[in-house]
Amino acid sequence: MLEQLKKEVLKANLLLPKHGLVTFTWGNVSAIDREKGIIAIKPSGVEYDEMKEEDIVLVDLEGNVVEGNLKPSSDLMTHLEFYRNWPNIGGVVHTHSRWATSFAQAGKDIMALGTTQADYFYGAIPCTRLMTPEEIQGEYELETGKVIVETFKERGLNPDEVPGVLVHSHGPFAWGTDAENAVHNAVVMEECAMMDAIASLLCNNQIEPMQQVLLDKHFKRKHGPNAYYGQSK
Amino acid sequence: MLEQLKKEVLKANLLLPKHGLVTFTWGNVSAIDREKGIIAIKPSGVEYDEMKEEDIVLVDLEGNVVEGNLKPSSDLMTHLEFYRNWPNIGGVVHTHSRWATSFAQAGKDIMALGTTQADYFYGAIPCTRLMTPEEIQGEYELETGKVIVETFKERGLNPDEVPGVLVHSHGPFAWGTDAENAVHNAVVMEECAMMDAIASLLCNNQIEPMQQVLLDKHFKRKHGPNAYYGQSK
Amino acid sequence: MLEQLKKEVLKANLLLPKHGLVTFTWGNVSAIDREKGIIAIKPSGVEYDEMKEEDIVLVDLEGNVVEGNLKPSSDLMTHLEFYRNWPNIGGVVHTHSRWATSFAQAGKDIMALGTTQADYFYGAIPCTRLMTPEEIQGEYELETGKVIVETFKERGLNPDEVPGVLVHSHGPFAWGTDAENAVHNAVVMEECAMMDAIASLLCNNQIEPMQQVLLDKHFKRKHGPNAYYGQSK
Amino acid sequence: MLEQLKKEVLKANLLLPKHGLVTFTWGNVSAIDREKGIIAIKPSGVEYDEMKEEDIVLVDLEGNVVEGNLKPSSDLMTHLEFYRNWPNIGGVVHTHSRWATSFAQAGKDIMALGTTQADYFYGAIPCTRLMTPEEIQGEYELETGKVIVETFKERGLNPDEVPGVLVHSHGPFAWGTDAENAVHNAVVMEECAMMDAIASLLCNNQIEPMQQVLLDKHFKRKHGPNAYYGQSK
Repeated sequence: MLEQLKKEVLKANLLLPKHGLVTFTWGNVSAIDREKGIIAIKPSGVEYDEMKEEDIVLVDLEGNVVEGNLKPSSDLMTHLEFYRNWPNIGGVVHTHSRWATSFAQAGKDIMALGTTQADYFYGAIPCTRLMTPEEIQGEYELETGKVIVETFKERGLNPDEVPGVLVHSHGPFAWGTDAENAVHNAVVMEECAMMDAIASLLCNNQIEPMQQVLLDKHFKRKHGPNAYYGQSK
Repeated sequence: MLEQLKKEVLKANLLLPKHGLVTFTWGNVSAIDREKGIIAIKPSGVEYDEMKEEDIVLVDLEGNVVEGNLKPSSDLMTHLEFYRNWPNIGGVVHTHSRWATSFAQAGKDIMALGTTQADYFYGAIPCTRLMTPEEIQGEYELETGKVIVETFKERGLNPDEVPGVLVHSHGPFAWGTDAENAVHNAVVMEECAMMDAIASLLCNNQIEPMQQVLLDKHFKRKHGPNAYYGQSK
Repeated sequence: MLEQLKKEVLKANLLLPKHGLVTFTWGNVSAIDREKGIIAIKPSGVEYDEMKEEDIVLVDLEGNVVEGNLKPSSDLMTHLEFYRNWPNIGGVVHTHSRWATSFAQAGKDIMALGTTQADYFYGAIPCTRLMTPEEIQGEYELETGKVIVETFKERGLNPDEVPGVLVHSHGPFAWGTDAENAVHNAVVMEECAMMDAIASLLCNNQIEPMQQVLLDKHFKRKHGPNAYYGQSK
Repeated sequence: MLEQLKKEVLKANLLLPKHGLVTFTWGNVSAIDREKGIIAIKPSGVEYDEMKEEDIVLVDLEGNVVEGNLKPSSDLMTHLEFYRNWPNIGGVVHTHSRWATSFAQAGKDIMALGTTQADYFYGAIPCTRLMTPEEIQGEYELETGKVIVETFKERGLNPDEVPGVLVHSHGPFAWGTDAENAVHNAVVMEECAMMDAIASLLCNNQIEPMQQVLLDKHFKRKHGPNAYYGQSK
């Protein structure tokens, strides 16, 4: 069942090594069929160059496997928390990409410093708070998702406008309208992280965010009713 | 019409991913036929590996499309401002290349620190001032071009001798005698930005420009009537 | 004899250039057959793309060559010291990989800052003390191994849980259950070193290790009796 | 004439892009036939992927072209100054490789911080003083060579033991027993520059050179009468 969704998830997973976002098996992509409430996700610990369409695991929104012989990615419960809370997203990706993970390890947001970020993220890409011992020792992957959702609520962020996050001391998650779009946003986050790091270092780590008016201009040039970038569809 | 110009513009656009200057569709190259007053430019938001010669859009100096089924690059009006003000340039390129964009995000010039830069740029590659809310909310892409032209005027720079600029909080533009030469200069700018960053960091961000006499020597070794680098043509 | 072991050692050596860990011949991998007490190791100073299975040298635990026409890697005696002291390891690798070597040159541990490291290393990857003139001028390669073993003893580290080390002013060694696993750990160490460096620089070189509870969680998710990452075997 | 030397020089020039040391035509390699007093060198400004054996230019030790239709590299007179002063060297290379050039732009030596450098360079790779206006405006390329030779004399360095230099505000030169060995040393210098930079930044640019005794050990393990690295020849 859901052959098309599995195909898309396989293809999006294979984009990760292509874009240099993963080493070994350190990444996973999922996508959801909203109508059926079924998620397709990468199996746990399988090499990218050996992964086949039939390895992709299908689960329901509570994480029960509905098809597949392999265990789903150990990050499954984090993905599901996004799908349950954020109704517009269609795909999720997690990686340990180098520059974004460096920010996560520093516990710092990826500030919005320029139009590259503004074209895709409506402001800073937030870094979550440290998790509590109870959260870490409890249902860890689920709690990771909860802390992320909490971060967006507390900071008043819209996940459709800021399609990515850094988990403190861990690494980035990104999402999007579908699996490929989620990976696209993960690539952008990695680029922005690299350029934010270099710009910060050139300013002795004392740098201000870009002008709000420029952020507005660029984000809205590509998103929402008045977008005019790209070919009309 | 202008098949040769379109070919050159397509070829120069494809050099961007080859030299690692672009991710996704984040870059565009144009070139002008000065006699006819027609500019060939990349279409907006089209993937590099799907781009064909017939996708290249032809426009006049006011930006009216004279041939092509696709919308021109959203940065068109910036390109045109260069062609209207600087009569000797034949090609323009815009990218979000990583190191140059980092400098743009830091709001810093790429200082002339060595002969690599001096061989192509007669001094620092300037970073523009912040744009005003009015400029950003008005005809933004045109205003971007105007701020760049203003920067060159106010700082007394000759665009034929300094074939590149950083737009504050945005990224680099470069230009040249034709499309390929513009891309060539964009590659040089990216190399210089990387080496300027590392050299600056090694000096705690307190570094002085190179000697003027060495800048003169290298620039004039390759440009102007007394050039002696390369094979005579 | 031991054709399978030699095959594995050759294959693991060839992984080094594939993962970008070596320049020229700057790296070597060995593996041990514990039952026979025989180690297979890369020959000294032979190019990776010319290396053949018959070039792999077999030695006993004292370093006597038991098969092979070439001299073993000059780092042999360091490898042997590991095999003699640490009964669970099956493979050893030494490289001059860029980021890990930078830490070795700075004389700094690769701190555990995030889950990438915690998935493989149970804490910081230690940097050894400076060697004494006597150690350096004596049986240098053997003494290098001794200083490493001493470092693990004095700091109370378990080499099965921290499968890597930095030799001060030199570079990284890593080990594992077999040759390929050793290389795997060397790749992880290089990734962690890069991300530790960037995170540190973003914090003005004042950064704290990750939470112990998160380190525990991630390490034990992948190692030991309660591991649940990957497919069960 | 000297077909073998030209072949070697062509091959060594092509190693530069292979090792990522050059962009465009920013590099050149030469080699000398000591018996005949003839040097083979890359032509000026010719693309690497179009270069053929017959393009290699032959000159005498004063720089007179003795064979070839193209102009020799504009850096010829610098190369010649090395050959005239240092009787043991057989090949010379100049690049603008990124990390080494960054040090040249910072006006800093590449300090000996670890065994990677000690295996090839007996100490720091020196950076020359600034050139005077007279030197720059005079026979610039020749004067560049003279300043380098002066640097080695004043600092008591042996070019056979320190086969590379940084020209202030310019970039690296390296040399060796032949053209390929010179390129080999240039690759090592670039690796060491990168690792020196990262190590320095991790120490707030306050780092000490490696122990002299370790430098001695490693350099002499690979060079001189008591070398024991690699296969005996």
